[in-house]
Amino acid sequence: MSPQRKLLLLGTFVHCKTQQDLDIFHGAGIAVDAEGKIAAIERDAPDLDEAKARLLTRLGWDEAEVDVTQAADGQFFFPGFIDTHIHAAQYANAGIFGKSSLLDWLETYTFPLEASLSDLSKARRVYARCIRRTLSHGTTTATYFATLDVAATNLLADLCLSMGQRAFVGRVCMDRADELNPAYYRDASTEASLEATRQTIEHVRRIDPGFDIVSPILTPRFAPSCTREVMRGLAQIHRETGLPIQTHLSENTGEIQLVAQLFPETTSYTDVYRRLGLLTPRTVLAHAVHLSEEEADVIAGHGSKVSHCPCSNTSLTSGAARVRWLWDKGIDVGLGTDVSGGYSHSILEAARQAAMVSRHVAMNIHTAHENDDNDDDVAAKEKERVKLTVEEVLYLATKGGAKCVGLEDKVGGFEVGMEWDAQLVALSHVHDDGELHHDAEHEHEEEDHGFVDVFGWESWEDRVAKWLYNGDDRNTKRVWVKGRLVHRRR
Amino acid sequence: MSPQRKLLLLGTFVHCKTQQDLDIFHGAGIAVDAEGKIAAIERDAPDLDEAKARLLTRLGWDEAEVDVTQAADGQFFFPGFIDTHIHAAQYANAGIFGKSSLLDWLETYTFPLEASLSDLSKARRVYARCIRRTLSHGTTTATYFATLDVAATNLLADLCLSMGQRAFVGRVCMDRADELNPAYYRDASTEASLEATRQTIEHVRRIDPGFDIVSPILTPRFAPSCTREVMRGLAQIHRETGLPIQTHLSENTGEIQLVAQLFPETTSYTDVYRRLGLLTPRTVLAHAVHLSEEEADVIAGHGSKVSHCPCSNTSLTSGAARVRWLWDKGIDVGLGTDVSGGYSHSILEAARQAAMVSRHVAMNIHTAHENDDNDDDVAAKEKERVKLTVEEVLYLATKGGAKCVGLEDKVGGFEVGMEWDAQLVALSHVHDDGELHHDAEHEHEEEDHGFVDVFGWESWEDRVAKWLYNGDDRNTKRVWVKGRLVHRRR
Repeated sequence: MSPQRKLLLLGTFVHCKTQQDLDIFHGAGIAVDAEGKIAAIERDAPDLDEAKARLLTRLGWDEAEVDVTQAADGQFFFPGFIDTHIHAAQYANAGIFGKSSLLDWLETYTFPLEASLSDLSKARRVYARCIRRTLSHGTTTATYFATLDVAATNLLADLCLSMGQRAFVGRVCMDRADELNPAYYRDASTEASLEATRQTIEHVRRIDPGFDIVSPILTPRFAPSCTREVMRGLAQIHRETGLPIQTHLSENTGEIQLVAQLFPETTSYTDVYRRLGLLTPRTVLAHAVHLSEEEADVIAGHGSKVSHCPCSNTSLTSGAARVRWLWDKGIDVGLGTDVSGGYSHSILEAARQAAMVSRHVAMNIHTAHENDDNDDDVAAKEKERVKLTVEEVLYLATKGGAKCVGLEDKVGGFEVGMEWDAQLVALSHVHDDGELHHDAEHEHEEEDHGFVDVFGWESWEDRVAKWLYNGDDRNTKRVWVKGRLVHRRR
Repeated sequence: MSPQRKLLLLGTFVHCKTQQDLDIFHGAGIAVDAEGKIAAIERDAPDLDEAKARLLTRLGWDEAEVDVTQAADGQFFFPGFIDTHIHAAQYANAGIFGKSSLLDWLETYTFPLEASLSDLSKARRVYARCIRRTLSHGTTTATYFATLDVAATNLLADLCLSMGQRAFVGRVCMDRADELNPAYYRDASTEASLEATRQTIEHVRRIDPGFDIVSPILTPRFAPSCTREVMRGLAQIHRETGLPIQTHLSENTGEIQLVAQLFPETTSYTDVYRRLGLLTPRTVLAHAVHLSEEEADVIAGHGSKVSHCPCSNTSLTSGAARVRWLWDKGIDVGLGTDVSGGYSHSILEAARQAAMVSRHVAMNIHTAHENDDNDDDVAAKEKERVKLTVEEVLYLATKGGAKCVGLEDKVGGFEVGMEWDAQLVALSHVHDDGELHHDAEHEHEEEDHGFVDVFGWESWEDRVAKWLYNGDDRNTKRVWVKGRLVHRRR
């Protein structure tokens, strides 16, 4: 990539300080160097001109070498979103799932589409659109499942790099020959599966040697698609290269029963991955809906991460994952759209659905205790406790996701030394007459700011809540990855 | 209103034939007369020119007196949505509810906002925006709760009429003097409450004598806000005028306990309304989450309707209403956004959330039976059965809603003699390179069609599913009520 100009961002900044607290600072400035790193933050200046002047002075930068972006009144900078589980190939099926659940959904909708993407022109069309759309919704990092096809997977990596989206790209391994994994869509052998994986790793190493933007990720689809040998082989590649791993875990009860049949030597679904060396601190486990206490303890003990995919889990009737309980266990959790098990590619939508799913978890606690009056108080408190707040689901979408994919030192928040992966957010202002104006008199309103309506009396916390619950890509005006402007809304 | 020109709509039409089936017809035409009624439908012509010619000939209309709207390739006409439960005053709070549940939410967020709308300039700002936004999302009929204030409620009716949204407008009755209903926001007396209701009825009668577009609706807020006397008084007005009634029922367990305390003479929450004469075929009961079998039978026996509000019920941790079970009981069900208990004012969003909530209901059936192997098969079948399909939730959004508000002969589908309440829907086309184009070469793409991406190989049923799950106001290009164009997207 060509060398970048330095950046100066001025205005209001919002990010997650902790799981519980937003850090909101106004009249501030952030300076980003030519490598895309945050060089300095100025949060105590009396106004934006002064913030800018102080930053330039402190860093010894000349104004001519800097691109300045000033957030308009009411706009704010927010960290880019991190999607810790998304199937790029399935993007074309978003919204198409009928009344299916996991295993019949794979057979009916998913495998045929994935297999068809060995046609590279089709793959380019689907992948480019997936990247463009997720970028436009503020996803600066995506952890992708591609397909079995090496060339198409490499194309996905190429596109992420050229379009500037930080990505983990996984060639999918499926080498188990049985009915679930159809002859038209599985690896020819264990060796072929591992070799294809190595080919994608080599390709990514050629196009992005430091894995600065794009990294390979080892991707056994899920235990029912893989032999023990291929999973052992991938674990071996992990030990040799340190590359991250992604797979699915405990999404659906039918799947769990199938795993128990296929791996009778194990004590649980989690135990399959543990025995074969796939539970590592660099492992992202998607779903984790129906875990036992013991399984969660094993995952926590190995430092593995969970990608919570609320939209998918509800759409496919998989279950309701318990984020508070995973956190209690000490497990890091991020959010996944799981397109197209999930119908939406927006992490903002995933965040609000995480809030909603946590409320369904809460409602079930109540149900479980309803026949025992003595437990009522305990249940009521627990019911409140498991609900996720606005702050918590935005944490999942940013810092939680960064921890999940091992990038917590680089992205997810605004700190000196971190990289500038961020979005500029604008909300709609409601005029005195309440009408939408698209005429000459209100020229600044020509732009469509979506339908998050701000009347002006809302606190900043309330504005962020309004954005969470009704925001879409129209609110995301600009998106940067590593200091590079990768999306700009017209 | 000024006399309208006749309309000719040409292209693809989609509407709900039954709860299970969409009726999709292509190359067709619908003729709408100057009163906004569908005069003829032509569905068997070889092309659009021929469909147009046949309609003009059959009706003896001259082309010069007709406005023609032709849906472009891939676009379709769909019935307007019906929102059977929305609080216009709370629009300004959409997305702001924290971790609250019903009773604390009323106290913290809702009553203060509603009370503040006695400021008519504020009311105009909030109401106009609420109508504009709901129209832009395809809501052609809305059943509104306003506030206690007569002048502001009348203003809401004025705005609906001038902006052309079919609406039921209810002045809210709250005459119970206790802690729940604060001194700053309740009617001065039962008599004052009934008199204020009559004033709004008179006002609407003056501005729309036939209640063709705007109708009053009798609105006891909910049992805990009302004395027996005011509810009896409203029932009496219903018997005198035939006006519809709306209220809340069985939303939250705390509320149900409160009702049992306040009305010890009753056998259930439903029994309160039954005894006081409020259960009628023109009554819309919002929520109905925690009904007993007996309560549902009573509602069905009285022919009263239920407004299902999935977004609100989840957001406020109220519960998960069982639509399939309500249907089994023979109760007509529509959808409500319940802004701002629900964060979204979009009925398309309510429809997808109805699908999601039905899946949570399904997952709980499984849970209830998990300790009993013999019941596994029964539970599995029931689990499948309670899930709502794409067709079913779109039925709820249109025909179901029409039945709910007593307009099933007028709106909700495309039949000769019904009125033209409809929307024109467009989806995005994915180019060969997958990129979004906003340049001169692709001038027709200048318009933002939202992010429902159609690749071209999808069946029409799949396109409708994609629209349901990812559609927004950008897909709704035009909206008509009673033949009048009331919204047009730039």
